[in-house]
Amino acid sequence: MMTADQLKDLFEEIERRSGEALARLERLVHQPSVSAGGEGIEEMALIVAREIRALGGRVEVVRSGGFPVVVGRLPGRSSRRLLIYNHYDVQPPEPLEAWDQPPFEPTLREGRLWARGTADNKGDFAARLAAVEAWQRTRGNLPVEIVWVVEGEEEIGSPNLETFAERHADLLQAEGCLWEFGRRLSSGSLEITLGMKGMAYLELKAVGAAADQHSSLAPLVPNPAWRLVWALASLKDPGEEILLQGFRDGIASIPPVSTRLLEGMEQDDRRELARLGLDSFLLGASGEAALQRLHFEPTCNICGLTAGYQGPGPKTVLPAEASAKLDLRLLPGQDPRIVPELIRSHLARRGLGDIEVRMLAGEAAAMTEPTDPFVAAAENAARLVYAREPQVVPISPATGPIHALCHRYGTPAVSFGVGNPDSRIHAPNENIRVEDFVLGIKQVAALLSLLAEPAEPARSEGSPESNRCL
Amino acid sequence: MMTADQLKDLFEEIERRSGEALARLERLVHQPSVSAGGEGIEEMALIVAREIRALGGRVEVVRSGGFPVVVGRLPGRSSRRLLIYNHYDVQPPEPLEAWDQPPFEPTLREGRLWARGTADNKGDFAARLAAVEAWQRTRGNLPVEIVWVVEGEEEIGSPNLETFAERHADLLQAEGCLWEFGRRLSSGSLEITLGMKGMAYLELKAVGAAADQHSSLAPLVPNPAWRLVWALASLKDPGEEILLQGFRDGIASIPPVSTRLLEGMEQDDRRELARLGLDSFLLGASGEAALQRLHFEPTCNICGLTAGYQGPGPKTVLPAEASAKLDLRLLPGQDPRIVPELIRSHLARRGLGDIEVRMLAGEAAAMTEPTDPFVAAAENAARLVYAREPQVVPISPATGPIHALCHRYGTPAVSFGVGNPDSRIHAPNENIRVEDFVLGIKQVAALLSLLAEPAEPARSEGSPESNRCL
Repeated sequence: MMTADQLKDLFEEIERRSGEALARLERLVHQPSVSAGGEGIEEMALIVAREIRALGGRVEVVRSGGFPVVVGRLPGRSSRRLLIYNHYDVQPPEPLEAWDQPPFEPTLREGRLWARGTADNKGDFAARLAAVEAWQRTRGNLPVEIVWVVEGEEEIGSPNLETFAERHADLLQAEGCLWEFGRRLSSGSLEITLGMKGMAYLELKAVGAAADQHSSLAPLVPNPAWRLVWALASLKDPGEEILLQGFRDGIASIPPVSTRLLEGMEQDDRRELARLGLDSFLLGASGEAALQRLHFEPTCNICGLTAGYQGPGPKTVLPAEASAKLDLRLLPGQDPRIVPELIRSHLARRGLGDIEVRMLAGEAAAMTEPTDPFVAAAENAARLVYAREPQVVPISPATGPIHALCHRYGTPAVSFGVGNPDSRIHAPNENIRVEDFVLGIKQVAALLSLLAEPAEPARSEGSPESNRCL
Repeated sequence: MMTADQLKDLFEEIERRSGEALARLERLVHQPSVSAGGEGIEEMALIVAREIRALGGRVEVVRSGGFPVVVGRLPGRSSRRLLIYNHYDVQPPEPLEAWDQPPFEPTLREGRLWARGTADNKGDFAARLAAVEAWQRTRGNLPVEIVWVVEGEEEIGSPNLETFAERHADLLQAEGCLWEFGRRLSSGSLEITLGMKGMAYLELKAVGAAADQHSSLAPLVPNPAWRLVWALASLKDPGEEILLQGFRDGIASIPPVSTRLLEGMEQDDRRELARLGLDSFLLGASGEAALQRLHFEPTCNICGLTAGYQGPGPKTVLPAEASAKLDLRLLPGQDPRIVPELIRSHLARRGLGDIEVRMLAGEAAAMTEPTDPFVAAAENAARLVYAREPQVVPISPATGPIHALCHRYGTPAVSFGVGNPDSRIHAPNENIRVEDFVLGIKQVAALLSLLAEPAEPARSEGSPESNRCL
């Protein structure tokens, strides 16, 4: 069993050079890289390539249709391989007026670094750079080969990452993948996430007359807004039951070792409800039952509704079309590709088969088994760095391309990072705490150290094929 | 029975001065008067007042909260009174690029006058001015007193007309009211409309969390877009059945004499369907069944839906609020004021009582009995002027403040005017035919002539209290 003492050289080097690491992060977040509009993307890809090259990596800038994927390869002492996934794009900074400083002017204040991209995801990229550098300065060659995939389209749904992965499958088989994000909880524990839900993102569109009509014609002219409402109401009932036949088919049974992880999770329903401005969660769920719903229920969510007149006051119009955007979050085993057809058949059976169903994005869920040795390494690293038991989350309720990049190639993934519960990702005043950033560098260095050791024995609940995602 | 010969002096005077009448109309439509934005409204009210004053009328410009109502009074030989209702405001002219000429630059072309307001409603106002003038020039004093109400808020739902009416109830009791609008059909017949449906215009609003959330929280956070969808779907089913308990209570039975009017109505389903770009009307209705639905069914129509993200592509958001605009067209006997409460109770019974229901506009339906002597006078005038049987429409499927201005005070109303089936009201290239304009002047003059006579006997189906609206 490794002890913190054995990491002293690494940790001291990290602390000595934490100022440099932070300065590098400031340079990274100073460069805008907004994938939604494309601002600064190409410049950012070059900066990422330069940073990995500076560590001795061979770097390729790969184009698979969209913004470039930067692929870095750093050689290791053994044939074992660690895959790292980050993204260099950020969310749009708007609304600008809600920031306490310009979003791309990083500012240190109250022990935090404030700027767009600090938490999502340049802070993690920078922490990983610093960890590799510390290893190289103190111990020389890396213990494992690192394949580093840094994409520029994560914030727009990674539309080309699957194509990239299919063309570079040989690079993606690894001991494990260190996924992009994470946070340190209020208690001081590191959160380690073992997977993400999948998603089918759909647009439903109903059409009626050739143009908007005066609503006095309502007794004769079909109204697509009504047809859309009837279609949607047929998909989920007020008891939150998703009524789509076949939707749950294929859902893999969740191993007890995964559900049990929820028992120990930090949570504060009251605080979260206050933040949301709500009296209660859906269906009155609370405590562990709320966590069960959050992590292990698929969803069918309306993201948007559009029809007819939306201005102030009355206007009597019978709209020519109506549309809705839906995201359905999926569990392991659900195939996003069949969801549009399930909905088409469902609507056709209800006389609403004329409603157009279009898939705008689709990703399968992925869940790494908690008993995987790579998970154990991440947990052990956290025990050494944070001096607390980490909180292991079996699957994030959000979605990311873990399946496309790792699971398909048999690579288990874990995600941890330098964020905090108030990092405000996707929002104004995004930030990380400097303390968490330095701990995050150590966590990556400790993981490298543990990967240099022979694999820990799997937990007693482990399945015989534990080195896989679900 | 009056003959056309007895109207020769009037008709010759009208033809002699038709150029002057048209020039006056050109001046009226040259003045913008867009109530939606207020452009030119005050100037237009002054012009209207001047025109009525020029005929010897006493004019008052009344403010009841909104844009002024111009009230003109022209004395008559008898104590009998004709009420005339017009409006001097027009719809916004946008989209400007779709006009063949600037919307406020009246242009004569192909026998038509093109400009915003020609058909809706300045052409009718101008025709009525010309008819009064022709009478005065040929026959001196008017046969009946005229009370002329010209409002400036019709195109924004007449929000202050009921207040005006309540304060001036003494002016509104009359032999009959000549309502604002109408058209001559393709066959050459005049359309005479005896009423309008009522309306409750509502906004439904559902709220959820204090701000939009990431949609990964969908298992826990109530989604107001879903609640709105469930609320709407509970109001009308896919068979077009309105499910609102109590909604039909109070609907007056339609007299057979009114329903029979539909039998003779000109219609061309195929042409109308082609215009709409549809294969069939709702529920497959056609012919007289379609006319029955159009005129004698109340409606519940979605005018607009708004929630969450409506831009291109995917965005995973759980909206903080969702809203819908609805118009419910009402039949005589239905009270718009109780509709919001009916909906609130309906939603409360379904666990959706938190959805806010706000009434933005409300008007009761009004339907004048076809057997009313005032209707007979309008029909007889049309027989003399158009040399064809007029088409009498028992009730328009659209809504106007006939109840607020006439019905409440026991005054029957009929509506006819100078439009045509392709007048494009509310749209670019609004127009009237010059021929229809001149005929329209004669129609008003003939009506005045007939009002000078003793009342015609009512039709055999007439009720004993025929001088009333329904």
